[in-house]
Amino acid sequence: MLVSGLIERKRDGGVLAPGEWRELLAAYVAGRVPDYQMSALCMAVVWRGLAPEELRALTDAMLASGARLTWEGIDRPVVDKHSTGGVGDKTSLLLAPMLAACGVAVPMISGRGLGHTGGTLDKLEAIPGFRTALTLSEATAQVRRIGAAMLGQTDEICPADRKLYALRDVTGTVASVPLIAASIMSKKLAEGLDALVLDVKRGSGAFLADDARAIGLARTMIALGEAAGCRTVAVVTAMDRPLGFACGNALEVEEAIAALRGEGPADLMTVTRALGAELLCAAGVAADSPAAQARLAEVLRSGAALERFRAIVEAQGGNPAIVDDPAALPQAPCRAVYEAPVAGVIMTVAPRPIGHGVITLGGGRTRLEDDVDPAVGFVITAKPGQRVARDEPLATIHARDDAGLAAGRRALDEAITIGEAGAALPLLSHRITARWEEVLA
Amino acid sequence: MLVSGLIERKRDGGVLAPGEWRELLAAYVAGRVPDYQMSALCMAVVWRGLAPEELRALTDAMLASGARLTWEGIDRPVVDKHSTGGVGDKTSLLLAPMLAACGVAVPMISGRGLGHTGGTLDKLEAIPGFRTALTLSEATAQVRRIGAAMLGQTDEICPADRKLYALRDVTGTVASVPLIAASIMSKKLAEGLDALVLDVKRGSGAFLADDARAIGLARTMIALGEAAGCRTVAVVTAMDRPLGFACGNALEVEEAIAALRGEGPADLMTVTRALGAELLCAAGVAADSPAAQARLAEVLRSGAALERFRAIVEAQGGNPAIVDDPAALPQAPCRAVYEAPVAGVIMTVAPRPIGHGVITLGGGRTRLEDDVDPAVGFVITAKPGQRVARDEPLATIHARDDAGLAAGRRALDEAITIGEAGAALPLLSHRITARWEEVLA
Repeated sequence: MLVSGLIERKRDGGVLAPGEWRELLAAYVAGRVPDYQMSALCMAVVWRGLAPEELRALTDAMLASGARLTWEGIDRPVVDKHSTGGVGDKTSLLLAPMLAACGVAVPMISGRGLGHTGGTLDKLEAIPGFRTALTLSEATAQVRRIGAAMLGQTDEICPADRKLYALRDVTGTVASVPLIAASIMSKKLAEGLDALVLDVKRGSGAFLADDARAIGLARTMIALGEAAGCRTVAVVTAMDRPLGFACGNALEVEEAIAALRGEGPADLMTVTRALGAELLCAAGVAADSPAAQARLAEVLRSGAALERFRAIVEAQGGNPAIVDDPAALPQAPCRAVYEAPVAGVIMTVAPRPIGHGVITLGGGRTRLEDDVDPAVGFVITAKPGQRVARDEPLATIHARDDAGLAAGRRALDEAITIGEAGAALPLLSHRITARWEEVLA
Repeated sequence: MLVSGLIERKRDGGVLAPGEWRELLAAYVAGRVPDYQMSALCMAVVWRGLAPEELRALTDAMLASGARLTWEGIDRPVVDKHSTGGVGDKTSLLLAPMLAACGVAVPMISGRGLGHTGGTLDKLEAIPGFRTALTLSEATAQVRRIGAAMLGQTDEICPADRKLYALRDVTGTVASVPLIAASIMSKKLAEGLDALVLDVKRGSGAFLADDARAIGLARTMIALGEAAGCRTVAVVTAMDRPLGFACGNALEVEEAIAALRGEGPADLMTVTRALGAELLCAAGVAADSPAAQARLAEVLRSGAALERFRAIVEAQGGNPAIVDDPAALPQAPCRAVYEAPVAGVIMTVAPRPIGHGVITLGGGRTRLEDDVDPAVGFVITAKPGQRVARDEPLATIHARDDAGLAAGRRALDEAITIGEAGAALPLLSHRITARWEEVLA
């Protein structure tokens, strides 16, 4: 295999054969193809894209580079969700126990905070003792026992993707729809799923600001999932404001627990129910969306979802006391109420300054090796379109010290604008399947 | 300096500041920027190109990475030529001594065969004892003494270009007009030239098959040369057939010596005179082209050019006997005449199969470390448009053994086609200066 010839062909807009992608990825993981050839090829892919058969071959090759979860003899469908990343998005914390309580299996492999967005692993690790570094055999045993496990990416899954992603991250080759799709879908398909729902964020807080690109990415991932026998559906949701009120690791866990008790913010519950219902329908557990929504409501009402969350926390070494007593979660020593500086209508609650604000407070990373302060963050009750009086409380800042409070205040000053009228994106705007696309609002 | 940010900016079609190019190249040569970032950036440049100020900054940075020849106190203008590469092109072997005999200084730094094309260094090394690995101080002393030196690229000149070119060669990033222009011009400008002529090849044997791209490359190089105070002119010449008759290292030296005696093939002499006249005019040594051509004819007629060639051979350790006795050059043990298989008109004498044929005979490289057999090759007297009888001799094959003769015959079968009518490109088709472009034919 002459790698420079493959690079030249892609550079000139040509197509690599599936066997060439397989051989190339195997040689790359084995260290026989150097990083400098792979990065040039990735840039050529950013430029020229990938044909559908190339994308499938690349995804398969990344998948084949590592282990896959196997579910022989399991009596339940296996499902998961993936989000393109947002601020205040704790739907994963709700969905794993809710879906498990509905009788499906959820081997949920999540990530850490990236850029301005939060990460499910960081949130879970706000729970004292919670261990996210499960092995694959621990995870599958736990899923078989209690229906769900919530863990981090392991070295066993898709080593080719891990090596390639680290390279793309420093060579300006992350921003490519096919490369993003192959990276996400290879890892999700390694979970051995029957069904997958994609939460595709749109709006100023989404990674892909351009709706058409976000929807294109969703379509690409759906095609990859379906080609691999995994029913895949995408819901496009609003990320022009945070989802729910809490932004910050322990604060989001607290809000998730309240939500599992039936006391969640309306927007969070709407998105959670929509994503969960898609999975119950795709997995064949519910006949239609109303039936699925009813089932999800029932596991909240009955307390079954909350108990399942407690079981997950216990199984993974976390302190189950946090389920009943939020004060057992890490608490920030300094709190301050943020009030409306003027009267008017909330125009924006911009997710990016809030996400960056959490990082400034110490609740996120600027470098991979940074420690995260789980306790800090914001609880922002203000939503776009809401009419507020001067000095009306809009948010609470949770900080380590007075400097943190000041930084949090600056972040909210930037994020929250008040004026004559506010307009927000519809919370659920599109539903995309392999067969059609539905405009929801 | 965040290199991934620079890569992303170029990927998105942006421009890097001159200082950013300087800092980047310096860090790359120092090993502080890894190959995998540089190759991704090069692919982004292949895609997006370089703005004129970026190209100047990149060329300057490569030039600044190494030594420059200095000519303080020299009483003659300093000139050189560069060719984009061809088959049978021995004009450099003629021009160095002819120009030196005309009273200009020629510090000629040449390359080896690349792809199907020959290289001046390989040709010179067919002369027993000839040493092309001069140091820069040896070369400048020789130029000051006898007017010319013919040497290979040294480690002292443009180390940034050498490192970058080796990377581009294996990452599909050679084919970029600005990167090619910066690579060539940084090395030529390091020679401290007053004037430079570019021989831009067109036709099936040229590296750039597309005329517009070849002319675009010439314009780009002219702009770089002129910006650096070096008068730069390009002549576009035909490479749809070999130049002259001989193709192969020792055979080309023999033909060059015959040409210095006034017995060169007409096409070779036309191109050599055109390139030489450009340099004599650009250097201010001749008032106009007819005066320059007369001067060049005179140094051939008088034997001054031949004696200058002898002086170069002697100065660089070669056996000067080859000047008077071609039999002192390496001789291939097997020779065979190639005859016209049918009567008709020569339609093509395609340079690529001939160049590849020389490599197959052992006279070129498929890998950098290959040894070259200096004696083998072809002497092809057939030219497109010529009417030939059946069995008329068209060429002589010079080979190491019978297998070589058979391979040579196959190459000529492919290269030479005979039919109803032949058409060839005009030998000299355009003349391009910083101010205008002239269509010559």
